[in-house]
Amino acid sequence: MKIIRYLDEGHVRCYGIVDDRGVHPCHGTPFTRLIRQSAVLDLADVKLLPPVDPPNIICLGLNYREHAAETGHPLPAEPLVFIKATTALCGPGDPVILPELYPDKIDYEAELAIVIGKRARNIPEDKADEVILGYTAANDISNRAVQFTDGQWARAKSHDTFCPVGPAIVTDLDAGNLDIICRLDGEVMQASNTSDMIFPVRRIVSHLSHCFTLLPGTLILTGTPSGVGFMRKPPVYLRPGQVVEVEIEGIGTLVNPVVG
Amino acid sequence: MKIIRYLDEGHVRCYGIVDDRGVHPCHGTPFTRLIRQSAVLDLADVKLLPPVDPPNIICLGLNYREHAAETGHPLPAEPLVFIKATTALCGPGDPVILPELYPDKIDYEAELAIVIGKRARNIPEDKADEVILGYTAANDISNRAVQFTDGQWARAKSHDTFCPVGPAIVTDLDAGNLDIICRLDGEVMQASNTSDMIFPVRRIVSHLSHCFTLLPGTLILTGTPSGVGFMRKPPVYLRPGQVVEVEIEGIGTLVNPVVG
Repeated sequence: MKIIRYLDEGHVRCYGIVDDRGVHPCHGTPFTRLIRQSAVLDLADVKLLPPVDPPNIICLGLNYREHAAETGHPLPAEPLVFIKATTALCGPGDPVILPELYPDKIDYEAELAIVIGKRARNIPEDKADEVILGYTAANDISNRAVQFTDGQWARAKSHDTFCPVGPAIVTDLDAGNLDIICRLDGEVMQASNTSDMIFPVRRIVSHLSHCFTLLPGTLILTGTPSGVGFMRKPPVYLRPGQVVEVEIEGIGTLVNPVVG
Repeated sequence: MKIIRYLDEGHVRCYGIVDDRGVHPCHGTPFTRLIRQSAVLDLADVKLLPPVDPPNIICLGLNYREHAAETGHPLPAEPLVFIKATTALCGPGDPVILPELYPDKIDYEAELAIVIGKRARNIPEDKADEVILGYTAANDISNRAVQFTDGQWARAKSHDTFCPVGPAIVTDLDAGNLDIICRLDGEVMQASNTSDMIFPVRRIVSHLSHCFTLLPGTLILTGTPSGVGFMRKPPVYLRPGQVVEVEIEGIGTLVNPVVG
């Protein structure tokens, strides 16, 4: 099932289920019960929103083998956790706004995001699927200048619009073998597969749920593959007027223009 | 004005205003309009909750001169920002639960917390008071073993119950000269004054609001003074059965039992 969130004609935030016929508006939420209505809308006509309004955005660093290698870090023994402010969230098509602070040092990071469906605490790995609602695409936009000055990553990754998410939450997806691609103005910058993850999704959910409670709607960004801009020679940073895309197999493409 | 949040007899979360007569139940919220009712409750009879339900918990590290000195760090040139998960929140009287992970390495940190009252973005320092609702006390409970292994502080400071907050939000307080004390089983562990802060509250709010949007209800923990447990010789960590208190002049005392 493919779940979106959108603004209806009355500017109310609604959930919808997408299939070959279009968008089926729903009552309720995927965290309670989603009740599909009989109407069908054209997907091209709806203004997509981030598919979830997360109570926390939990992120992993250095979770792809090739990315850990390109940054010169040893493979982490445990998932490396940081948090983005929830105010960083934006949706499909929304502009990524370059901040006043080091606007020429802003980088992309294509990531598979887990959406938690049920309150989760101390979940064993083999029960993790029961608390996962589904998966979406995310871009962990990062201010590299602030990141390396601060040491702590929270501020560098929490500027407004620095967490594009979408276009849809897809349930019933095998998250262990999905192609993940990042494009900048159509040029492929990252191309990998989730099978390169050091800690796979069930392990991540179990690990985090042993650290703290995961509430319904929690977004977990599972780390980015190799090919990030700041490690390229010469480095590549986002520039106003560009378009950045994250495409994940089975989920779709998250497209965001870059605005100065 | 002193604002609390509590559970009423019907187990509904309510705001109340406290004065010499007791608790005046309120309709509305301090972020919209707080409408005081005629009833008066005894403060001793109400179950206090965290006085706010924050969309983000933004924290500063190393913001007191003596604490920066005790940890051997140079004074930071800019506020050092990290984020706690909102699920770490707990209220006055709630137990601080030692986690399974390194339960013998859990430390206290008494902190003045700013409560944001209005949506704030790019606020100059001399307008910061207009977006601050008031101040409360917080305890930035920290898992020192996880903190220094991870490097990133988010996980170590986000275990459930690791952010006690309260007992009240006090408006119209001069935050620049308040005694702040942490006691463990009655023994003073930290005793300082907010005048030792490197970055004072208006500077913090202005700085953060230039990084990202501060929504109403955002909690900003402004750093802890010297005397933290892990820097003591021998080190002091929280043990089951102890009581940890944060007292801030003009706000009151936040009391939490420690549970194993």
